Parts: sequence; C-alpha cells; structure tokens
Amino acid sequence: MLPPPVVHYLHAHRQQHLEQLFELLRLPSIANITTDDDPCLKTAHWLRDYLTGLGLDVRIWPVEGGKPNVLAQRHLADDKPTVLIYGHYDVQPPEPLEPWQSPPFEPTIRDGFIYARGASDDKGQMFANLMAVEAWLRAGQLPVNLKIFLEGEEEIGSPRMETFLAEHGELLQADIAIISDSAFFAPGLPSITYALRGLAYVEITLQGPSADLHSGIHGGAVANPINALARLVAQMHDAHGRVTLPGFYDDVAPLSDQERQMWAALPFDEQAYAQSLGLNNLAGGEEGYSVLERVWARPTLDCCGICGGYTAQGAKTIIPAQARAKISMRLVPNQDPAKIIESVRRFVAAHLGKAFTANVEVFTEARPVLLGLHSPAMDAARSACEEAFGQTAAMIRCGASVPITEMFQRRLGLDAVLLGYGLPDDALHSPNERFSLEQFYRGAIATAAFLGNLADAKPKNCP
Amino acid sequence: MLPPPVVHYLHAHRQQHLEQLFELLRLPSIANITTDDDPCLKTAHWLRDYLTGLGLDVRIWPVEGGKPNVLAQRHLADDKPTVLIYGHYDVQPPEPLEPWQSPPFEPTIRDGFIYARGASDDKGQMFANLMAVEAWLRAGQLPVNLKIFLEGEEEIGSPRMETFLAEHGELLQADIAIISDSAFFAPGLPSITYALRGLAYVEITLQGPSADLHSGIHGGAVANPINALARLVAQMHDAHGRVTLPGFYDDVAPLSDQERQMWAALPFDEQAYAQSLGLNNLAGGEEGYSVLERVWARPTLDCCGICGGYTAQGAKTIIPAQARAKISMRLVPNQDPAKIIESVRRFVAAHLGKAFTANVEVFTEARPVLLGLHSPAMDAARSACEEAFGQTAAMIRCGASVPITEMFQRRLGLDAVLLGYGLPDDALHSPNERFSLEQFYRGAIATAAFLGNLADAKPKNCP
Repeated sequence: MLPPPVVHYLHAHRQQHLEQLFELLRLPSIANITTDDDPCLKTAHWLRDYLTGLGLDVRIWPVEGGKPNVLAQRHLADDKPTVLIYGHYDVQPPEPLEPWQSPPFEPTIRDGFIYARGASDDKGQMFANLMAVEAWLRAGQLPVNLKIFLEGEEEIGSPRMETFLAEHGELLQADIAIISDSAFFAPGLPSITYALRGLAYVEITLQGPSADLHSGIHGGAVANPINALARLVAQMHDAHGRVTLPGFYDDVAPLSDQERQMWAALPFDEQAYAQSLGLNNLAGGEEGYSVLERVWARPTLDCCGICGGYTAQGAKTIIPAQARAKISMRLVPNQDPAKIIESVRRFVAAHLGKAFTANVEVFTEARPVLLGLHSPAMDAARSACEEAFGQTAAMIRCGASVPITEMFQRRLGLDAVLLGYGLPDDALHSPNERFSLEQFYRGAIATAAFLGNLADAKPKNCP
Repeated sequence: MLPPPVVHYLHAHRQQHLEQLFELLRLPSIANITTDDDPCLKTAHWLRDYLTGLGLDVRIWPVEGGKPNVLAQRHLADDKPTVLIYGHYDVQPPEPLEPWQSPPFEPTIRDGFIYARGASDDKGQMFANLMAVEAWLRAGQLPVNLKIFLEGEEEIGSPRMETFLAEHGELLQADIAIISDSAFFAPGLPSITYALRGLAYVEITLQGPSADLHSGIHGGAVANPINALARLVAQMHDAHGRVTLPGFYDDVAPLSDQERQMWAALPFDEQAYAQSLGLNNLAGGEEGYSVLERVWARPTLDCCGICGGYTAQGAKTIIPAQARAKISMRLVPNQDPAKIIESVRRFVAAHLGKAFTANVEVFTEARPVLLGLHSPAMDAARSACEEAFGQTAAMIRCGASVPITEMFQRRLGLDAVLLGYGLPDDALHSPNERFSLEQFYRGAIATAAFLGNLADAKPKNCP
C-alpha cells in the first residue's frame, strides 16, 4: 500500500503538475527539426531543471548530431533494487495541421482530456512517472535506487541509441526498467504489455532498362520492372495469407492455450475495430488465427511503400527503368531479423527472372521481445494497477516494436515492465492527440505504488 | 520520275531551307506551356506566313484552351486526287537539360546532324514535306489538290482533336493523308509503316483503410492495399508471358506467314537492341513470338506507374490506405479498346478480395490501325523511296500509336501513308534529339516524288 502522504501529495499538487505538463507540451520538441532556438534542447533543459529541483543528480548527455539524453539518479543503498524509468521527450510532427481543433502546441482541456501533440505520447505519461518520483521524494522516502533516462529521438527511431548504449550503457545498469509509452487495452482496463514484435525492414529495387522507355515502341520486347516487382511481392504470400519466404515460420514460438484463452476473453469487438479504420471487414489475414493473435503473436509481411514509373496525374506511356518496394516484416519470438533478411535475399534471387538486377537494402533489424508473464516485477506492476485503478490488469502483447525495450534487454540484460497510461483512442501520431486527465493523475499514483512494490519485490536482476 | 527542275530547286535552296528550319527550331513550342508571348502561337504564325508566301490559302484555326491548327490548301481540279499532309509543330519539353551538349532551342550542326528539340519530331520531318510542296509550286506544277494540316498539341496527346474533327472534319476531306512522323527501320532502309498499335490506358486504385495505419499495431489484422494491388497486377500475366484478362486475345488478327517472313528478313540484332537499352537480354516476353512480332503484332499489358504508401527515402512502417497502378495495354488489329477496358473492370472485380474497394479510371482508348500493304498510295510511296533513297522500302509496323491516323480513318474515312524520315537513334523525347541533314534533304525529295506519283495513282478514295 502506498503511504497516505504520498497519495495526498499527488492529490494536492494536481494543478501545479498540470501547469508543468502544459509547459512541456508548449515546447515543439520534434526530433528531426533543428533550429537555433532548439525546442528539444529547451525541453531537455526544462527536465534537467525540474529533476535537479527534486534533488537528483542530473546530467545532460549531448548526442553528436542528435538530441541529448537526460539522465538523473539517486543511489540510496546497495541492497535496494535499482529501478530505471525510461521516457521520451520528443514528439511526432503535428502535420497535418488543419484537422486540429486547438493548436497542437497550445495544450487545451476539453471534456476531461488534454489536447496537444505529445499529450499521451510520451510527455504526459513520462511526466506522470516523474510526478510519482516527486511525491516519494517530497512526501515520503524514496523506496528504491532510482535512475531516470529520458531520450529525445524516439519518434525518429532512436538512430543514435545503439551507439549511446555501447558507450555509456553502464550508466543505465538497473534491476528493472519501467517504460510508460503504451495504452490500456480498453478504457477502465489497465494493461501490461509483456511482448513486442520485432521488425525487419528492407527496400527491394528492381532495375530493368537504363532509362524509362516508350511503352509503345518497346512494349512486348522489354520486361517491365513494375510487373516483375508486383509478381515478386505477390509471391511473398500464399492463398492462405501465409508468408512464403523459406523458413519464415521456423523459429516462431507457438501460442500457448493459456494466452489464446486470455486474449479471447478481452473486450474486443472485431466489427467495431474494422469500422474505426474505415473498413467493412478484416478479410485477408492469415487463416487459423484470431485478429489479436494475428497482430500480437504472428509475424507479418507488409509492403509499406511501392513506387515505380510515372506516378503523377494522368497517363504517361512508359516502361520504367526501375521499381522499388519497401517491405516491413513484423517478427515474433523467437524469430531472428538477420535470418529473415537473408531469406528475403534468397527469395528475391530465386524469383527475380533473368531480365533484371535487384538490390535489397536493409533499413531496420529489431528483435522481438518476450518478457516473463509472472516475474516479481510483473506482480509488482499488477498490484500497483489494482491499487491505482481498482481493476486487475490485463496481460497483453503489442504488435509494434518499442526498440528501447529490446536494446535494454540485449545490451544491458535489463528487462522492462511496459505499463502505459494512454487510452486506445488517444490519436497518437495523429491530429487532436489527447491524454485523459484521469489517466494522467491515476497513472502517477500507479507508478508511485509500483515503485513502492518494487522495493519489496525481488526484480529479476536484484541482488 | 520527279521533274528535274523540282529536284534542282531543292538542291539549290538547301541553305535557305536549313535556315528556315532553324527559325522553327528556335521557337520552344511546348504545347502544355502557355506564356504571354506564346511560342506555339509564334510557330503557328511563322507557318502561316511561310505557307501564305507559297501562295496557298491559309487559315489558323484557334482551338479553345489549346494551341491552334494551321490549315493550308490549294484546289486545282476536281478530277485530281486530294492529298492531305499532316505534321505537328509542337515539341516535347526539353528536360532534363543537363545532358544536352548544345542548348535544346539553339539548333547546332555536328557531324551531319541537326541537334535541337523537335529536329526530328516533328519540325524537321514536317518542314521537309513543306519544302517538297514549295519546290513543286516554285519549279513545277503542283500535281495534286493539296491540303496541309499542322497541329500544335500532338505531344500532349491531341486532347482537343476529336472535337476539332467532329466540328471541322469536312475541311480535311482528302483521298490520302501523308504523315511523316516516324523513322527508317535502320539507316539506309526507308520504311513505310502500315500498322499501328492501339492503346487502352487505365488507372486502378485500391482503397483499404481510411488512413495510413501503423504497421505494427495493425499489421496482420488489416489487409494491405499494396500487397493486394501487387497480386492483382501479377495475376494479369501467366507464366508464359500471356495476358490473362478474359477474352484479351479473342479479336487479335493472326500474323500472316508473309509478314513473319518479311520481318524476319529485316536487319534486327536482338542483342544489340537489348544492349542499347542497358539490358543483358530480352527475357520475359510472350512465348512463341520474335521480338519484332511481340512489339508490332502482339498486344501487351504494362504497368507504367505504381504508387502506394511511403515512397520517400528510408523506412516508414505503415499499412497504406491506398495504392494505385497505371496500366497501359497496347492493342493490335482487331482489338477494341472498349471491350478490353470492360475486361479489366471484370478482372479487377473478380480478383479484388473483399477487404477493398476499387476504382478503374480510363485515360485513353485508341483503336489499332491496319493499312493495306498494297494500295495504290502505298505503291506510290514505295516508288518515291526508290527514287529518293535508291533503296526498296521496308514495310513495317510500329508498336506505338499515332492517334491522328486512327482518327482520320474513323472520322473521315481517310487512310494515311506513314512515311517518316527519322533514324532509329534520333533520341526522340530525349536529350540531344537530332535529325540527319541527309535525311532532311532527301526526305523532301521523297515527298516531292510521292506527290508526283500520287497524281498518277488512284488513291483509295480518289474519284
């Protein structure tokens, strides 16, 4: 149980915390924009000052060519567990601007929601966690050794994080990480994510003639790279929605009956979900699996972009020189992105046809993550959810990647608990992003309780 | 035989004619560009003045929203055949500019070639024909009733020509048309084109979700419009390179043995052709036909453009809302573009899959053209080639469309002789377009001889 003064502190400082979050939300900290008066740098400085004000040891780590990492810590005693809280202070670009009902960097409250870019992803969730730390420091005794790690390039794929962890990983050594950058499965249903899909992302380029050709003069003589690329992409699935790359499913961990039953019990309305995406139905997926199973526990192959020939308005009669397809493969435990990419290369070579040359460029290789359903840290998080939300947490997976989770695991041997406070319709990355005030305040209480529980638990790496 | 004074006139005026052609080439008459000081209008006025100077009745026909047509005529006697000479004074845009060795609108002679945009396509060929008329008028007696019809929108697909012919077609009534907007099959081998392919051009749009979706969060649940479009395009060919649209080959006129033998005898080096296009081989075409047969007498289906999802640099992990493919089908006698487009619609509906909606937009419907190999007008053209070039003309087809040919045939019952003076490597529509000086001068002699021969022949529609 959280000490009453800590709870009371959070209740008493709601207005102050809201104003502080608004200050953060007013800073347009978009990672891939650099100006003289860099909003990302201002945000990092704001966080440094705030955390310094809490009495933590704070350091800003400049990142060559990128946005700085903010690291704060307080070491209490060697026999206490060390908890790392991760968040990111950068946000998605706000475009398109037109649909926003209030300006993206002027946070506005309507009907119990804070509307602003970054409200949910991730400034609101990040600050809820910092509020929990503040409450423990001001109204109680911090129960664990603490590290806070806030990055500024998550929304552009953390391109410099591998290097940072390779060089400074020891700074982040901890027993358990808390990552709050996710959402409840449904309103009222707190959710802990215990698995993430990985990603292998490649671009395939087929080269035909050295220049675009007149489709009348040469059509019939010259093989067409778009037609060939279409054939190649089409051949990557069979008639049952399964991926045909050789060995693609070899390492896929089978779903347990327990997980299938757990997910089947979740409040999921397939038809409502389809309609929310503007679809009449969800036809065409892999046969033999429910929608949640397909998204959470089955690997996929999606063409995220295709381009070739003339793509502006109207007609132009050419056989193009080149065609390109971007292919994203979402991977599940225990697939290995390197093996999958090798399989793509072999597939392309085998199906190319001799009229073309092909190039396969690799953009992303991220391993899937699977965390124990029943570790002491998971149990601590579940108890915290009961205390803060009065509801047993659902154990869910996520079809996306949160690459820092995998990097922590691989580089530092550090498992995370993914406990997020967003709601499914927070409009992440979209106009009118929002964060529920209720989730904001209760999330801080949940994190405070989680920290308290972790002091008594034995997180995986705890001495 | 051409009267010696006519030949002599052309020889004597070579320098003057070259200077006049240079004046034409200096005018950047690009049909889809309109400026206050419109180069197309200036070109039309130049031609009007030139033709008026020859003593013809000349009229410029303004075209609402487009570039004017120039029409000149001289009626001699009702018992003489009427010959219509067609040409176009507009040119392709010169871009890309960087590869040009001399500026595209500053005609320059190098190694016996005139380098300029429009040198071969079509100002040079058009003016060679006008020089032939000039020679007859100045040094002999015009042997036929003459109409000259010069358009200014050929390079943008003659978008207003159907309307013009519907309204003013009677002005162009003639017994035979001469179109010089093509090339020799090989240097030294004059060539008469007796068939053109038609064209059906559509754009297929597949609509999936109402917006681009996160490929992690939704990948596996939601069918991907690019994957589906790739499958659709791929299914349009079988493993033997044949088009699978239902009924696609039903109306295809079979190749005669005579034509197959005639084309097999042409000087065509498949390997050299492939290499000229930057290819190692011509694998992948329809089985059972030679390259020339595939290009000239077999219908094709080529994707000229495909686009969907994220197409800029690097990775973006989305399931796109939409994907589009532009499909060009080159048609041969006696295929009907309307039937073919109907077949595309049926094919798309049958293969779409129920997760998507599809739209098929039609951009072009042009019928194929087949002219008699042995009409009196063809014989007159062959004799003219022997006289001007000392070589028997090859009877060839062309895989492209020259839509005016089909419009003349369909709207006016007017057959054409397609006798062009370009060479295969004139770089039409490309940087460093050129026209051989020798072809320019000899082309004028050939057209003059052709006009003379037509006076004695009985062209198809001659009374």
